[in-house]
Amino acid sequence: MAINTSVKHILTAGQFNKEDLENILQRTEVMEKECKSGEVKKLLTNKIVACIFFEPSTRTRLSFSAAALKLGAQIISAENAALDFSVHKGESIEDTARMILSYADLMVMRHPRAGSVSLAAEVAKKPVINAGDGGNEHPTQAVLDLYTIKKRLGRLDDLNIAFGFDPKHSRTIRSLALLLTHYKNNRFTFVCSEALAPLPEFLKDLEKRGARFEVISNLDRWQDYDIFYANRLQEERFKDKNEFEKYRRDFVITRKLVEGSKTMILDPLPRIDEIELGVDALPNALYFDQAQNGLYVRMALLLYSMGM
Amino acid sequence: MAINTSVKHILTAGQFNKEDLENILQRTEVMEKECKSGEVKKLLTNKIVACIFFEPSTRTRLSFSAAALKLGAQIISAENAALDFSVHKGESIEDTARMILSYADLMVMRHPRAGSVSLAAEVAKKPVINAGDGGNEHPTQAVLDLYTIKKRLGRLDDLNIAFGFDPKHSRTIRSLALLLTHYKNNRFTFVCSEALAPLPEFLKDLEKRGARFEVISNLDRWQDYDIFYANRLQEERFKDKNEFEKYRRDFVITRKLVEGSKTMILDPLPRIDEIELGVDALPNALYFDQAQNGLYVRMALLLYSMGM
Amino acid sequence: MAINTSVKHILTAGQFNKEDLENILQRTEVMEKECKSGEVKKLLTNKIVACIFFEPSTRTRLSFSAAALKLGAQIISAENAALDFSVHKGESIEDTARMILSYADLMVMRHPRAGSVSLAAEVAKKPVINAGDGGNEHPTQAVLDLYTIKKRLGRLDDLNIAFGFDPKHSRTIRSLALLLTHYKNNRFTFVCSEALAPLPEFLKDLEKRGARFEVISNLDRWQDYDIFYANRLQEERFKDKNEFEKYRRDFVITRKLVEGSKTMILDPLPRIDEIELGVDALPNALYFDQAQNGLYVRMALLLYSMGM
Repeated sequence: MAINTSVKHILTAGQFNKEDLENILQRTEVMEKECKSGEVKKLLTNKIVACIFFEPSTRTRLSFSAAALKLGAQIISAENAALDFSVHKGESIEDTARMILSYADLMVMRHPRAGSVSLAAEVAKKPVINAGDGGNEHPTQAVLDLYTIKKRLGRLDDLNIAFGFDPKHSRTIRSLALLLTHYKNNRFTFVCSEALAPLPEFLKDLEKRGARFEVISNLDRWQDYDIFYANRLQEERFKDKNEFEKYRRDFVITRKLVEGSKTMILDPLPRIDEIELGVDALPNALYFDQAQNGLYVRMALLLYSMGM
Repeated sequence: MAINTSVKHILTAGQFNKEDLENILQRTEVMEKECKSGEVKKLLTNKIVACIFFEPSTRTRLSFSAAALKLGAQIISAENAALDFSVHKGESIEDTARMILSYADLMVMRHPRAGSVSLAAEVAKKPVINAGDGGNEHPTQAVLDLYTIKKRLGRLDDLNIAFGFDPKHSRTIRSLALLLTHYKNNRFTFVCSEALAPLPEFLKDLEKRGARFEVISNLDRWQDYDIFYANRLQEERFKDKNEFEKYRRDFVITRKLVEGSKTMILDPLPRIDEIELGVDALPNALYFDQAQNGLYVRMALLLYSMGM
Repeated sequence: MAINTSVKHILTAGQFNKEDLENILQRTEVMEKECKSGEVKKLLTNKIVACIFFEPSTRTRLSFSAAALKLGAQIISAENAALDFSVHKGESIEDTARMILSYADLMVMRHPRAGSVSLAAEVAKKPVINAGDGGNEHPTQAVLDLYTIKKRLGRLDDLNIAFGFDPKHSRTIRSLALLLTHYKNNRFTFVCSEALAPLPEFLKDLEKRGARFEVISNLDRWQDYDIFYANRLQEERFKDKNEFEKYRRDFVITRKLVEGSKTMILDPLPRIDEIELGVDALPNALYFDQAQNGLYVRMALLLYSMGM
């Protein structure tokens, strides 16, 4: 079975070409202006958006919900659909999708299993948006990262951008780096311990796309980066607890490190202790802005998926 | 305490006489047309519908939610009210109902305990709709089954209808069969293992209503049925695991069985493995249609309960 | 960091002076009239209210949700945010608040940890309403208790009011008593076992505010009270199970006790067995009214917080 191509699903960051991205970023700017003026055009009036989460993610679910409501849509929502009896009994993701889309005009879905949202899309006659499928993809996050950079720096080329601290497991790092290869002259630095280095396939993919990158294990060149994209270390990724403790101490973005530098900091959040609280008040801290931009980007993406 | 009769609760499929059913089915047709034209009259504007689920059922909750939203109502909702502290502390269902109905204009309630929704209705001054109370009743499901048959076959009499595979435990089979006794000349066949045969009380009830029926244990007469109403076998219903495995193998609606026959297939879903995936594309497969019809039926039933 | 004072958070009952209370009670009356006439002014159109519950409380969440919807706002909601991955991973309450308020115009928050909602308010640039933070505060409950008394008795002074049965742990008793010290000539009686007597700090606070009070352990003077404010005994508060059983038997408001008296009964609910079911039909029973008033009070408080 092939994906129904007349419907604009959003399944992977890789599906967007540069022209798509430019259109979406422009639309996002319009959304931001409309929200700030308090005059949002209700383009989704009488539409029902289903937010179906098979694992809880308050952040993503509420961001999509607010985006849909701002556009005049209404929401039906499952905070934790995995608790549902039908799911326990073994209903397929395809059947669930068919059922939900018989009530709703669009489905935003998060699921812990990689590839599951694409399975849903295969049978869907209405648009499906991937709000995270396990470690695989979270495409709307990548687009909001892009928008945040563009908004602050005014460009998406000629960037010296570092990614820390777990490029091996982070779907957000992977997706953002790939999207940035659509633009010219970007340089990537992955800051990580050896155990969490980017996967060879991913680096090969970057190479094929002509990207320049290096992998290092310290923050010595902080001053050089235009952007530092941080995410937290997770203890369960380490076999050796001592190594986890070491890197957790070493890989902290401190106020001392940041103050006076031009380096902008992004973080998909939640932030645990990878960024000191003292950094929040510095102009370098873009991570709360990023969350806010998520609202505008998701508004633009809902319209994109609805073919509007 | 008696049920407040000036308020139109929906508690059991048995409460509807033929005239009620005809009115509801006609109203459902109007709802379907309005939805398809995109012009739904917002008859429930400024009304608040509470969807209170004491066990999760994404399907039913979202179906009712979408129905209410389409009519212009707003939703307050509990996905899993059983987790609530008040419930743990032992609040009675009657107190919960009084409380909810001091905020909402109508309450849709699901509860795992048979009879509990009727207890809620006893104290309610506003309408209560039973969205499933344990193994007991799920009246809106029965009405949507009826609507699906009428819509496809154009009639509710002169039907040769089979029910498989667990008529002993299935509230949906019981309710649909009883509703069909309001119509003339229907013949019922229950397809099941001996252990899951319909309960004697139920068969006595059918007899009293003048219904013709038989109980068999195979699918040999597939070609004879106008309708085959399937539901899944649940392992926990069987004492003997070998018997479960045997019937699970025997009672599968295969593409080979269905193809070329006129027999229409209904299933309240979730479908586990009682219907082969290959059947989905055949014109006989009505089960996804059925889910869709649930939306229209629930719109009609919300209006019925609100006295509109 | 200090609370942002240009934003009107609602964090504690103690923050309201008498003038605030009078304004809020008047506004509540207007809300009640508007609701009863079916003509509620949609003052919160295009606003998004987030109801973020870190522990389930169907009653409070749905009350706030309905209040916001009646005023034309829209809702984004977390029924049990504590299940969320981000929370498990250790995101701070401040970061969560910043994130939620980048999507919503106001946040209603419940959290099991005392003081946590105030932490959220410290970083919030938009209003935060405390919907209960552990055993600490539940300010909107206190205001609705006040409104219920005023509405029935026409006054908030010259009250002879008793509080039973756990003044030691009950945040609602504490808050209501403190609010009533803004009014003249009220007399407080705490009815409880020795183990559950009010905390000395609390009694000292009452004394400082010039309140007259006493602590007794029986219901002998029932006839004297204008108001009896009941709440349930919780087994886990008692070290000695026999003592729990004794007081559970002694501290029951029976129909026999109540009938013929003028004493009005309030209870924040859930009611377990502290009030006999037979009392419900007597004119003394205000507790379901109280739940209903919660809707109007929360409408008024949402407007207060939004500076309207």
